[in-house]
Order: sequence, then structure tokens, then C-alpha cells
Amino acid sequence: MTPVYLDYNASALVRPEVQDVMARALADNGNPSAVHAAGRRARARVETARAQVADLVGADPTAVVFSSGGTESNAQAILSALAAGCERLIVGATEHPCVAEAAAASGRPVEVLPVDANGVVDLAWLKEALSRPGRAVVAIHHANNESGVIQPIAEAARMVRAAGGWLHVDAIQSAGKIAVDMQTLDADTLTLSAHKLGGPQGVGALISREGVPVVRALHGAGQERGLRAGTENVPGIAGFGVAADCAARDLPHAAAHQAWRDAAQARVKAAGATIIGEAAERLPNTLFMAVPDWESPQQLISMDLMGLMVSAGSACSSGKTKASKAISAMGLHDLGTGGVRVSGGWGTTQDDWSRFADAWAAAYAKHRARIALRQREVA
Amino acid sequence: MTPVYLDYNASALVRPEVQDVMARALADNGNPSAVHAAGRRARARVETARAQVADLVGADPTAVVFSSGGTESNAQAILSALAAGCERLIVGATEHPCVAEAAAASGRPVEVLPVDANGVVDLAWLKEALSRPGRAVVAIHHANNESGVIQPIAEAARMVRAAGGWLHVDAIQSAGKIAVDMQTLDADTLTLSAHKLGGPQGVGALISREGVPVVRALHGAGQERGLRAGTENVPGIAGFGVAADCAARDLPHAAAHQAWRDAAQARVKAAGATIIGEAAERLPNTLFMAVPDWESPQQLISMDLMGLMVSAGSACSSGKTKASKAISAMGLHDLGTGGVRVSGGWGTTQDDWSRFADAWAAAYAKHRARIALRQREVA
Repeated sequence: MTPVYLDYNASALVRPEVQDVMARALADNGNPSAVHAAGRRARARVETARAQVADLVGADPTAVVFSSGGTESNAQAILSALAAGCERLIVGATEHPCVAEAAAASGRPVEVLPVDANGVVDLAWLKEALSRPGRAVVAIHHANNESGVIQPIAEAARMVRAAGGWLHVDAIQSAGKIAVDMQTLDADTLTLSAHKLGGPQGVGALISREGVPVVRALHGAGQERGLRAGTENVPGIAGFGVAADCAARDLPHAAAHQAWRDAAQARVKAAGATIIGEAAERLPNTLFMAVPDWESPQQLISMDLMGLMVSAGSACSSGKTKASKAISAMGLHDLGTGGVRVSGGWGTTQDDWSRFADAWAAAYAKHRARIALRQREVA
Repeated sequence: MTPVYLDYNASALVRPEVQDVMARALADNGNPSAVHAAGRRARARVETARAQVADLVGADPTAVVFSSGGTESNAQAILSALAAGCERLIVGATEHPCVAEAAAASGRPVEVLPVDANGVVDLAWLKEALSRPGRAVVAIHHANNESGVIQPIAEAARMVRAAGGWLHVDAIQSAGKIAVDMQTLDADTLTLSAHKLGGPQGVGALISREGVPVVRALHGAGQERGLRAGTENVPGIAGFGVAADCAARDLPHAAAHQAWRDAAQARVKAAGATIIGEAAERLPNTLFMAVPDWESPQQLISMDLMGLMVSAGSACSSGKTKASKAISAMGLHDLGTGGVRVSGGWGTTQDDWSRFADAWAAAYAKHRARIALRQREVA
């Protein structure tokens, strides 16, 4: 049986079109700062990609600063907000650790914006917090990496704008899965990562609203208009551009993917799983489910033995039996260590989803039977 | 005529072996933190590369922290030294801007370690500076990116060690061109960049001596043993590993490359060029030359029209008519804007070097004839 890859939220499979453009760039390497022919071709690759990435989010190419990935771009956004005079940091409870820890590393106190039982940020809390003195940078991701829960960014943006704050939106998990538009979201800064949308690992971007002052986090030569020093990763950036292009083209397929996800969801729910964030609007590719009596690592190993590649919440914490950040923030503590995240992408088929659902339901039934047997033996 | 690429110090051509391993990694993407099969294959690629990179510099694999490139690793080294209690920053006059500006960005005063007319750091000055109070981090690159001049690192290390300081060695331009050995150089931290030795752009490494406390610059998830957050760039890191392997294998060819460089050097010198750092020990692949009466951009364009790709000192400053940092620091101010850097690598042939030398000598003679004609017309 061919293996089934359902871990796109950790790292998407790299699209064939991306592999092609990267192979061409690698075979024709040059430094984009060089004036010679190879340098000019490298520069053209970077600028083509900049336009492609900008297009995906309805931004101007000049608003794009390429980086080594989401972690770096998120850190740069927070640094920029603080450099622009923000004194307070308000960070969503389910933000990715790279946002939460970059905020903490600033040395200033971080106020945690709570989420409700569906994982959605508490806008009433935010409004109250913004009414207190001190200009704030507010970091809310567009969609959660674990649950896929989509946040009410436009509403939050109105509040932040009215309070004179800075809204940073980590759109790393939403881009390419649902529409991401700088105008609609009205973020001051927004971040993307290539490897979450079918591009290569090691490339990200910070996008800023016109007039928002971005500062550099890496110092040195004048690349990226002085906003990010270091020789550009030309093959990676070229791959990012093509991935953005393909992702935009494929957005209309999201409904079909969602139907496959929903069918799988119904199947595992019937078999006893709780669907995390079920009542909230979620990414069409993501299914985050949990059970109280089977720990994530055991579930993952069981699935892996059947050729089904899924994860336990964020990949960064896979392998550790640590409660999921998203589940804990929602207050579902009995499910915290039993979460499994299933996430599809461009290469996923209906069959992949049903194979997962069937396999998981059967394995969970077997696991419960074993538990029941053990309990009878003890009794 | 096939174009001649002699700009390896800006970005090396990517070795075919590197292109192959990267293509395989891109076609089999996975997040190294995932526990499933694809994740474990990705992890194996990263750890194989870590051993390969460690081998190139005689380090233990656990001493390697991968990053997005030399700029990031140099910044991390300086951050680590300051976190460890260094209060003073002593930076070589011809260091790469990413070192000099990372030092400046720390907000502490930077003491500039001067170089002599050959571009070699003044060890007597260093000794005197180290005798003053305050623990210092001393940053000296192993070889200069523009001139290829090799610095007396082991001697500097003895002084820094005796004074209880921290020696950071940027070995980005020397690695793969001459032997780079952590024990011999006795650096506390050392940095490498994949794209300078035939690997991809966007990958670097910080290597530390045992017991030297490295701190993280990017916060978030726990990748790289907590020392560098962000999903690993698996294809890039795999490419870096193979490039390091190939570079180590090819080191014995350096003498042949040097002979070709020396022949070209003799030719352009006879035609009127000054060789920058001629009296110093230099990288075998690098020829940095200058004339007082022909500006770098014009020389580059003239060479490019003949299919010869070279640069004006560091690529980062190419295209700008700005005096070369290396030439200025050596006090050769009349040559500052007339420098041309020619740098070979794994794909370079004897014919490439002689084609460059012949073409440049002919073009310079023509340029001088034009100047002479104009002067006669004015007179």
C-alpha cells in the first residue's frame, strides 16, 4: 500500500512545479547582488517570486521582505512593532511558540488573549485590554496550526486600528488553504512560510501594510532594501513564488477537500473522537481530533505502521507527550495528550482521507477492546 | 563562447552532487520533528549533513547549529559572546558587514582592529587592546571575502585565550578552499555558509568549541537542541552536507587552482593591475586586483559583455560605486573604486583563468588608449 501523507500543516509535500523551478535555479546559481549575467538572472528569479507571493495575499511586491521562514518573519514583525513604539504585547493564547516566545524574549510583559472552548479569541477581552493605556502590538494568527480554527481577524483589526495599535497576523497556516487578503484582514504585518503551502523549507516572508515601518532583525549587507541582510536564498525564494502561484490557482478546490475532510471527521467522531474546534470556522484541510484514553504518540505509531503519516498537534512538539497548546487553551484538559492532527494538501485524495478514517476507527476500537480486557482481568 | 563564471566568492556554482541530494530531499519532504516515516527520513538527512559539516572543520556533530546562512550564524556568535559576559567588542577592519554591523547593533562600542597594507590584522595592536580591562569578544575572519587574505588566527587565538576572551572566526570564505580545523584555529565559535562552498544559498552553521555556551537568536520551538527555532531547511541542509563532503575531498586540488590563479595574476599585473594583498598569504582561488583609472562597474560590464562573470569586491556592494572595504582598510585609497575580484571554484578550469586574464588585459589596454586619445584631444 502506498503511504498516505496527511501532515501538510507540519510540512507540505513540495509541489512538482516547485521542484522544477528550484532545480533550474540550483543549476544556474548566482548572487542576486552581482551585476553579471548570472547575478541578473538570480535577481529576476527573486523579483518574479516577490510578485507571486505578493499576489497570493493581495499586496504590493514592495511590501514583501523574504526571510528564512515563519519563525524569523514573526520575530521581525514583533521587533518592528516594538521599534515603532508599541509598549504592550498582547498575544493570542494559541499562537505558535515562535510568536509567543519572540514576544517573551523582548523582555516586556506579555498579556495573553484568551480563547473560548472553540479556540476563538475573546474579542470582548481584547476590546477591554485595548482600552487600557499604552500602545499595543496584538498578535493573532489567522488560523491555528493544530486545530485549523480561523480567527476573526477583520473584527480584531477594527479594534486594534481604533486603539492605534499594531496588528500582526501570522497567516502561515491559512495561506494557500483559504483566501488571505491584506486589505480584508487589514493587518499591519502578516507572515507567510513557503513550506506550509507546497514550497521549500527555509523560506518565509513578512508582508507589511503601506507605511508600516519594518525594521531589520539581521544586520549586514543591504539585501531586501536594507530590511534583511544575507545573500538571498534564490532557489528557495523561486520555489516559494511558484508555490504561492499554484496555491492561488488551487484555492477553488478547497471545497472538495473540505467535503473529504468532513466525511472522515464524521467517521472518527462516530468511532468516539472529539473534534477540536468543531463549532468554529476551520481550515478546510485540517482535522484535529482527540480521545481521553489513547495517548498521541501511541496513536501516531499505530497509524505510521499502517503507512498513515499524521501528527500530534504541532510537529514541533511531536514525540513529546506534552499537552497540546490548542487543546489546553480551550480548557479541554482531559483530551490534552490524546490529540491527533490530520492535514491534507495539494496531493491529497479522497481515498487518503477515507483510508485514514477507517484505519483510525478500527485501531481505536481495538485499543478500547484491549483496555476493556485489561480492566476485566484486573477486576 | 561558453560563459566563464569566476565569482565563487559571491556564490559558488552548486555542485551536481548537491543538486542531486536536494532534488531527492525535495521529492520526499517531511518535517524532521514528525515521528512518522517521512519525518524520520528528514531527520536522518539533517543528522547526516550535521556529521558531514562537522567533519569538514574537525568538529563534533553536536557542536553544529544550522541556520539560514552566514549572516545569521555570525549574529548568533556575537549574541552568544555578549550573553556569556563579554563586555567589549573587537572587530577586524575588513570583516564582512554582517559581523561589523551585528557588533554595532549590539549597542556597545566597537573597537576596530586595524590591518596592515597587506590586509593582515595587527597582532601587536590586538595584544595591547587585550591588555586593557574588560572581557572581549574578538571577531576575525579566517580569510577576507574580497582579497582572500588569510589571517593569523592561531596566533590571535593564543592572545585571546590568554586574556580570557572569546574568539569568533568567520570561516565562510576559507572553508572548502583551505584547511579549516577547529583545533588548529582554536576558535570559540566559527561560522560557515553553504553557498560559498558549492552548496545552496540560505543555509549556514555556527560551530562552537566544547563548553562554549551558545544562545539562541531565534525563539520558538525546540529545533537544533533549542538553539535555533524554526523548521529545519532539510533539502538545504542536506545539500550543505554533501557540499562539505565534496569540498573536503577536493582540497588537494587547491594547489593546481592556485597555479592557474597565479598565472592569471602575473598576466594582469604585467598589464598594469595592482594585486591587493599580494605579499600576504591568500586563498588559492581568489585574485583581487585594482587599477586607479578604470572604475569597477565599467570593468564588470566590459567583462560581462565578453561572458566573463566577476565582481567588484564583495557582491553585496557590487553595482554601487563605493570604495572596497578591504582596499580602503589597507590604505590604498587611489585604488578603492577600481577593484575587481576574480574567484574560482570546483567547476573552474585553467582555461577560465587564462580567458579572463587575456580579456581583461586587452580591455584595459583599450581603455587606456581611449583615455590617452581623449587627453590628446583636450590638449
